[in-house]
Amino acid sequence: MFTLGLDYGTNSVRALIVRCQDGREFGSAVVNYPSGHQGILLDKHDANLARQHPGDYLFGLEKAVKAALVQARKQRGFSADQIIGIGVDTTGSSPIPVDANNVPLALAKKFAKNLHAQCWLWKDHTSWREAAKITELAAQHRPEYIAKCGNTYSSEWWWSKIWHCLAVDPKVFDAAYSWVELADWVPAVLAGVTDPRQIQRGVCMAGHKALYADEWGGLPDKEFLALLDPKLADLRDRLYEKAHDATVPAGQLSPAWAKKLGLRAGIPIAIGEMDVHYGSIGSGVTEGTLVKVIGTSTCDCGVVSADKQVADIPGICGIVKGAILPGYYGIEAGQSAVGDIFKWWVEVICQGDGALHGKLAAEVAKQPPGHSGLLALDWNNGNRTILVDQRLSGLLLGTTLHTTRAEIYRALIEATAFGARAIIERIRDYGVPIERVVCAGGIARKDPMLMQIYADVTGCTMQVAGSSQACALGSAIGAAVLAGAHRDFTTAQRKMTRIEKKQYRPNPKNQKVYDQLYALYRQIHDAFGGLNKSVDLSRVMKDLLALKDAARA
Amino acid sequence: MFTLGLDYGTNSVRALIVRCQDGREFGSAVVNYPSGHQGILLDKHDANLARQHPGDYLFGLEKAVKAALVQARKQRGFSADQIIGIGVDTTGSSPIPVDANNVPLALAKKFAKNLHAQCWLWKDHTSWREAAKITELAAQHRPEYIAKCGNTYSSEWWWSKIWHCLAVDPKVFDAAYSWVELADWVPAVLAGVTDPRQIQRGVCMAGHKALYADEWGGLPDKEFLALLDPKLADLRDRLYEKAHDATVPAGQLSPAWAKKLGLRAGIPIAIGEMDVHYGSIGSGVTEGTLVKVIGTSTCDCGVVSADKQVADIPGICGIVKGAILPGYYGIEAGQSAVGDIFKWWVEVICQGDGALHGKLAAEVAKQPPGHSGLLALDWNNGNRTILVDQRLSGLLLGTTLHTTRAEIYRALIEATAFGARAIIERIRDYGVPIERVVCAGGIARKDPMLMQIYADVTGCTMQVAGSSQACALGSAIGAAVLAGAHRDFTTAQRKMTRIEKKQYRPNPKNQKVYDQLYALYRQIHDAFGGLNKSVDLSRVMKDLLALKDAARA
Repeated sequence: MFTLGLDYGTNSVRALIVRCQDGREFGSAVVNYPSGHQGILLDKHDANLARQHPGDYLFGLEKAVKAALVQARKQRGFSADQIIGIGVDTTGSSPIPVDANNVPLALAKKFAKNLHAQCWLWKDHTSWREAAKITELAAQHRPEYIAKCGNTYSSEWWWSKIWHCLAVDPKVFDAAYSWVELADWVPAVLAGVTDPRQIQRGVCMAGHKALYADEWGGLPDKEFLALLDPKLADLRDRLYEKAHDATVPAGQLSPAWAKKLGLRAGIPIAIGEMDVHYGSIGSGVTEGTLVKVIGTSTCDCGVVSADKQVADIPGICGIVKGAILPGYYGIEAGQSAVGDIFKWWVEVICQGDGALHGKLAAEVAKQPPGHSGLLALDWNNGNRTILVDQRLSGLLLGTTLHTTRAEIYRALIEATAFGARAIIERIRDYGVPIERVVCAGGIARKDPMLMQIYADVTGCTMQVAGSSQACALGSAIGAAVLAGAHRDFTTAQRKMTRIEKKQYRPNPKNQKVYDQLYALYRQIHDAFGGLNKSVDLSRVMKDLLALKDAARA
Repeated sequence: MFTLGLDYGTNSVRALIVRCQDGREFGSAVVNYPSGHQGILLDKHDANLARQHPGDYLFGLEKAVKAALVQARKQRGFSADQIIGIGVDTTGSSPIPVDANNVPLALAKKFAKNLHAQCWLWKDHTSWREAAKITELAAQHRPEYIAKCGNTYSSEWWWSKIWHCLAVDPKVFDAAYSWVELADWVPAVLAGVTDPRQIQRGVCMAGHKALYADEWGGLPDKEFLALLDPKLADLRDRLYEKAHDATVPAGQLSPAWAKKLGLRAGIPIAIGEMDVHYGSIGSGVTEGTLVKVIGTSTCDCGVVSADKQVADIPGICGIVKGAILPGYYGIEAGQSAVGDIFKWWVEVICQGDGALHGKLAAEVAKQPPGHSGLLALDWNNGNRTILVDQRLSGLLLGTTLHTTRAEIYRALIEATAFGARAIIERIRDYGVPIERVVCAGGIARKDPMLMQIYADVTGCTMQVAGSSQACALGSAIGAAVLAGAHRDFTTAQRKMTRIEKKQYRPNPKNQKVYDQLYALYRQIHDAFGGLNKSVDLSRVMKDLLALKDAARA
């Protein structure tokens, strides 16, 4: 028996066919979105804008699944009718305006070229003003709404985007019967749902992005939404009352799509979740385990049994019951830029190619911590956790006339490790245990210096997820559980995921120095981040020098 | 009538022959010091060490003067016997241990290769521990000693170096009958002085580097020196009782050196001064005029009539009566790295050649202030004024994933401009007027973007010294006044110096933005520099973003 995982990333969609009994990957294929710049529709007048053409999702779906099937068929013991379920994960919050038949406005000729009628990609920040207003209004009228998302509502999220659409293009807003998260829309399409009100919405996106919670009756109440705009209160009636965890199917594969893809009609489709959430399942997330998906940015996922009391954790992206695993609170945190910062340094500043990463790392890999005398803040793209502030910026200190580009490269890696530690400490401080860390994503597999630094800085052994396609694997696991191939997620994860043999254990000597560097990091972090408005920074440069002298002695 | 100016720089010595009536330069020649790395003796185990072989000074002297004479002889109306005086300027504090015959120990076979027996070049920082102890002891026992040098005694200075020699190589210390500043040693050699106690010492080096002041009876008293080490108290007897300004000759050219150089014996030799001090004379320093010599580092010189009361100015390198012009207090300030910071960015980080400076500047020259959203501290080599702290380091903030190398290049230039403004404000705050600024040095002549930024940041019109050899010209002016070619320095400067036509006037629109950026600079300057131990830095990044948004609107 097999399941199909579909992973909708920022630039491409991946299809993965997995054997349920052992997680073996039989076929996979990636299709780039054909529209825009690397699949993203941009506006040269506004760097904040990032949209995506919904037609690309359908195009990529068909092409990727077929290609994966071709590959799988070459393996002994596989046939397409053994695929018993489909799982879907996507970026988010990526809402799409749809008409009363669940057809995206962008697919109608009238709106085909209108940027506001497209999918509003997760990294669209055009609605930062609306986000600030929602934060302000919620703080005043419904503090509980934002208490679970670090007390700050983001410009990347559902209501900010829809409200911004209403502000800048009311025609599009008025033409939209409803709005659907990409993660809910793809399963609905596969299931042949043509009434937006019949779409089964996932609690993952609803809870993390749309202020949904069962405890206050679902989405924000109409009275609150009317404070934003009465039209948003009206919209609520055309959205949904209830969102679901992965125990509820999104639907069954429609005959039309079954035919198109060459799969059996009627197989169950799992509820859609965010890519990294299914990715954490594919990396083996359990209580006590933090999964870090390290890519251009980082997403951290953890779970805590829903039987326990979990306090709101300030500065964390969200705590949502059922968001990752049924029966558990899902906790999400993240860093706005990680790989992107190294790429910026290597490609934009040093004007090197990909090979320069390795060259710079080799130059400084053997240096003890503190050797460069440098300290950086990992905020080149703002801070997602624990400060929740998109408008913070990068900082580098300790440079001399002898500082090298390789030393700065390493200082930037260390900065992201300090950011990672701040997240771990914050989660632990609120009673959620983190006993091990599993890293997924390309960087985790390719950069041993970074992984060792993360171990030394956080004091946690760093493990590496066995699959390089953890998100697609996770959605395939979701489908396998739903289809009954395994009795629960714990069993499915035990059978279908694995960990790389190579682990990175903290080096106690390095840890000791990094503890001191982290203390300095927190001083500038807290000062510029506003956590502490009267930090004495007069010792920072001297303390760094002392560590540098010690490292060189 | 002509005079000869000798300018001993860090890597080479320059000889300049100048006509007294109009300052026209008839001949000049530069000779690189042959020893070590670019004339500097280094220790690969200690980046702080920088020494120089005294033999190089004699070698360069003869070769440079002869080459300058060859050039001058090609001009109509010149003959060597019309040279009526010699002036000498050098780096400092650059003390040389000498024997009882004024011969440097390094010229004896026994010590030829001993690094501690060489000239201790100004930028040698091996004695930073001694400097800190002297600061501490003076603060406790003789606060007046350091009140005039920003309350901090430097590792670059006389007593730190000699004490460090005693600590690390007592054999050299014991073998030294006396110690002589390079600026005093060269004139003494030319005058044939063979007894160190007969050397005429300049008050410029004595006052700025050796804690000398007439008001407390010359050098530090023996009781104080004994607190450092009794051997230093003993040494005082073999140094000097009185140091002189430029009204007192260092001596007359000895027959032996006259013959060697092809000059008239007996012509007067002016008292030695620091290179930038004579450089400020060559750039037209007068009361109300600040001269900035902008090179790898920056030296700022001003003068105030000795008839006035001048308060001690905290953080200023020194206020010494007669140090620059007789009858005036000389005020010296400076920035530890300026051109060196741009060179570091271009050559070490961007790994470009000299041409990249212009390319980067061209990319950002037209951007309005604030456009990059960046802010830097100019401390890559510590801060000389107004914090007097060698162990501070560089800082860059406001970087994003889109920040370019050219934007950082400009931010570093702006940082040095902010540093320059801090110096000007500090001097003005203590009642010393600065009405115009004259810049000398290669950067002032070659970098119009930098000069305009300096004008916009400081609000002062930036003028450029007419001579590209301002230091050598200044020492030639010293010789001309001493030899009677002009009745005083004011007249000599009027006749012998000039200003370039091209001036840089502040642009009021840019000034307004730079005033805001400077306010942010001062927040991080004061926080990391320790002037204010509880600055609220939580707004810095946001305020920068606001300026960036405004610049881009």
